[in-house]
Amino acid sequence: MPEAEPPTIEALAEALAAGEEDRAAALIPELHPADLAALAGTLDEETWKPFFSALDQETLAEVFEYLAASDAEKALEQLPQTRQQEILEELSDDELVDLLQEVPSPKQEQYLALLSDSKEAVSRRLLRFSETSAGGRMTTAFATLHEDMTISEAIEALSEISESTEILSRIFVVDERHRLLGKVLLRDLTFNPRSTLIKEVMDDDTLAIDSLADQEEAANMIARYDMVALPVVDREARLLGVVTHDDAIEILAEESTEDIEKFSAIAGTHGEEGYLQTPVPMHFRRRFFWILPLALLAILSGVVIYNYEHVLNQVYLLVIYLPMVVAAGGNTGSQSATTVIRAMALGEFTPAAVVRVVWKELRIGLLLGGLLGLCVALVVQFFMPHFIEVPPEVSLRNVAMTVGLSLTGQVTSSTLLGAVLPILARSVHLDPALVASPAITTLVDVTGLVIYLGLAKALLGI
Amino acid sequence: MPEAEPPTIEALAEALAAGEEDRAAALIPELHPADLAALAGTLDEETWKPFFSALDQETLAEVFEYLAASDAEKALEQLPQTRQQEILEELSDDELVDLLQEVPSPKQEQYLALLSDSKEAVSRRLLRFSETSAGGRMTTAFATLHEDMTISEAIEALSEISESTEILSRIFVVDERHRLLGKVLLRDLTFNPRSTLIKEVMDDDTLAIDSLADQEEAANMIARYDMVALPVVDREARLLGVVTHDDAIEILAEESTEDIEKFSAIAGTHGEEGYLQTPVPMHFRRRFFWILPLALLAILSGVVIYNYEHVLNQVYLLVIYLPMVVAAGGNTGSQSATTVIRAMALGEFTPAAVVRVVWKELRIGLLLGGLLGLCVALVVQFFMPHFIEVPPEVSLRNVAMTVGLSLTGQVTSSTLLGAVLPILARSVHLDPALVASPAITTLVDVTGLVIYLGLAKALLGI
Repeated sequence: MPEAEPPTIEALAEALAAGEEDRAAALIPELHPADLAALAGTLDEETWKPFFSALDQETLAEVFEYLAASDAEKALEQLPQTRQQEILEELSDDELVDLLQEVPSPKQEQYLALLSDSKEAVSRRLLRFSETSAGGRMTTAFATLHEDMTISEAIEALSEISESTEILSRIFVVDERHRLLGKVLLRDLTFNPRSTLIKEVMDDDTLAIDSLADQEEAANMIARYDMVALPVVDREARLLGVVTHDDAIEILAEESTEDIEKFSAIAGTHGEEGYLQTPVPMHFRRRFFWILPLALLAILSGVVIYNYEHVLNQVYLLVIYLPMVVAAGGNTGSQSATTVIRAMALGEFTPAAVVRVVWKELRIGLLLGGLLGLCVALVVQFFMPHFIEVPPEVSLRNVAMTVGLSLTGQVTSSTLLGAVLPILARSVHLDPALVASPAITTLVDVTGLVIYLGLAKALLGI
Repeated sequence: MPEAEPPTIEALAEALAAGEEDRAAALIPELHPADLAALAGTLDEETWKPFFSALDQETLAEVFEYLAASDAEKALEQLPQTRQQEILEELSDDELVDLLQEVPSPKQEQYLALLSDSKEAVSRRLLRFSETSAGGRMTTAFATLHEDMTISEAIEALSEISESTEILSRIFVVDERHRLLGKVLLRDLTFNPRSTLIKEVMDDDTLAIDSLADQEEAANMIARYDMVALPVVDREARLLGVVTHDDAIEILAEESTEDIEKFSAIAGTHGEEGYLQTPVPMHFRRRFFWILPLALLAILSGVVIYNYEHVLNQVYLLVIYLPMVVAAGGNTGSQSATTVIRAMALGEFTPAAVVRVVWKELRIGLLLGGLLGLCVALVVQFFMPHFIEVPPEVSLRNVAMTVGLSLTGQVTSSTLLGAVLPILARSVHLDPALVASPAITTLVDVTGLVIYLGLAKALLGI
């Protein structure tokens, strides 16, 4: 018997690409549904269909739990109605609602009609929440008990749903109006005498989130309090659902990606689709949004240089260090903007700390600018003359001083601006990341040019 | 009776700042230990001490579970030895080891000596792992059972540790050599007859991570497979500990911050301390590392402009659009670099997909460059002459064409370079983020200048 191939996602991808259906079918049962779902996200048109046909109904249902909503929709469309029905019915309600939110209205109604009455009702209720709210992210897979039950009654009530692991890690105690009173752990039921009342073993922790709150707030609470599941309540404190730790990881990853993208002048929200799945026009739109205004803004820098024509005409050598002064300001400005924005995003300080931040960045900026100015001035004075001839009428020492001092001034002011602008933005409830790197870079370019060319004029006596 | 103050962290911070110890003491029991720990991280020297004195031993122990290691060490140092001992003994082993890793050797030995023998032995074992490995992040708080036990025997074995909620969500089945065979859920013990054998109810899932693997790999597995706890094993598949979902969130947040920082030319690793706690010299070092080489690299751009003196001398007007062409390349290059690097970090594709990525970025680059070039050429031709006088010997149409075409060329090539360089870096096992935005920006500045000034020379017949 030949040795079995080690079951890896790469091997499966190869088998699918080569059209070897038997080999693919042998590998699939050995792989985790999460890995299969991730693979689906990277497949192209030709291998997509054979892959999904090779999955049996049970595996397919498991894979659907991990698929991005857009991939799930694409996969669902290719299935016959009976298989669609089974998949939709088995899907956990939060994943189901994600998928339904993705599809156009008529299709949504068609899928809803396939569901059992109870599942349809839950889905319609969940669909009313915004996709990005805590309510839009929650699942209704949880169990409730009442205070006056005994453990034995509770276990009997729960045993009907004992098949669902998920639910049993989320047992809440509610009053007659379904308001959250606390939670019970399965271990409290397992390791206490059966006649004990629930109210004696329950934990009266009612930490919860409003269903209309932003999903990011829910994720931050889960992260902050190390929770496995965060209860979601309505305005009357009635328990509606839970947001779980795995959703928190997903939400935080999406938010981090969006932050990183904003720092790189990419606009809009990051969809659930991966890079390869996102169509070119969508990539284009998100990038072009910032590129045109930033380009027009950069003409300002050009106009400044244009207006200093007489300075550059007299000492054209100055042009050599011009891009550097400009770039150093942009780089240090975006460093401090990034640091400050990220610290605010992680809740490390609020705009009230602005004085402490300014004092800190002022010292950092002076250190950075001072040392950089000194290093570069030495390079200009002693190293560069080996490569670039200095006209005899130009004082090399004064050029070196101009470069060094303007670097110090430019870096210090950029560092301060980079820190202060995001705090200002935040204090007037704008997204600090909107004023981040590229916009700040373009702005400080102008200050850099004015400092450098103005200083040159003064020091070189032009 | 006056109405009680709403218990918020802000109110407590105010009370501490105002030195109102009674008001602070009244607020503390109402607040979550995680919030108290977060507050500790933002306190200055004067309020630090009264805050920790106001916490009773039990609250203090809870707060320690959430404190950053550096804050924990600072707080511990101020306590008398008996209180130190109680805190250290109660601390979960992963938090304890984080703290011990933070302190200098003699202090570490001193703290280890305060521990009970068993806790000391576990700590010394965990301290042997690198801080950034799965082993360095794991906790040994888990329970093990054997296949041949009955549920009744298992419950008896577990009832001794039933006080620890954490442990009971991590029950593993091991063989006589402590190798991982699978896991058991508490619900399997609760809802099955007591005479059932463990092997009949266990789940034989042995998904685990090697103790020497990087912590990021562990976090990615937890995220990918929606796990609450990931088993950590040695080379012989023996179970050593677990990494938990809350660690995964922390690790992923640290990694995202580091990625964001690398994109902004900030070097090194992001410590556990917040922005305000990190001393100025540390901020300075992490920023200066990149600023000097980037500045020296930017001199290259200057030398290129210097060498095109005759072009700018003849049509000085060209200087107006020079910063824009350069900036557009930098911005689009960093957009594509960011997108590609983030997608690789999230495991969306591997370097093998390079052809598909290049094809995608080529189309995006041509679209971006083409449309941007067209828009700006129109601005140059019809809008700018209202503000800047064009010398009669210069063909405005040719200037507009030069600007438009060089934007198209520069944006397309930068978009491609921004995508390809990180993939190349990754394929030779360099960190793709190292070649990210600032370095790429500085490089594409040079290509932009050459394209722009070269094209100007040709089109304007200089």
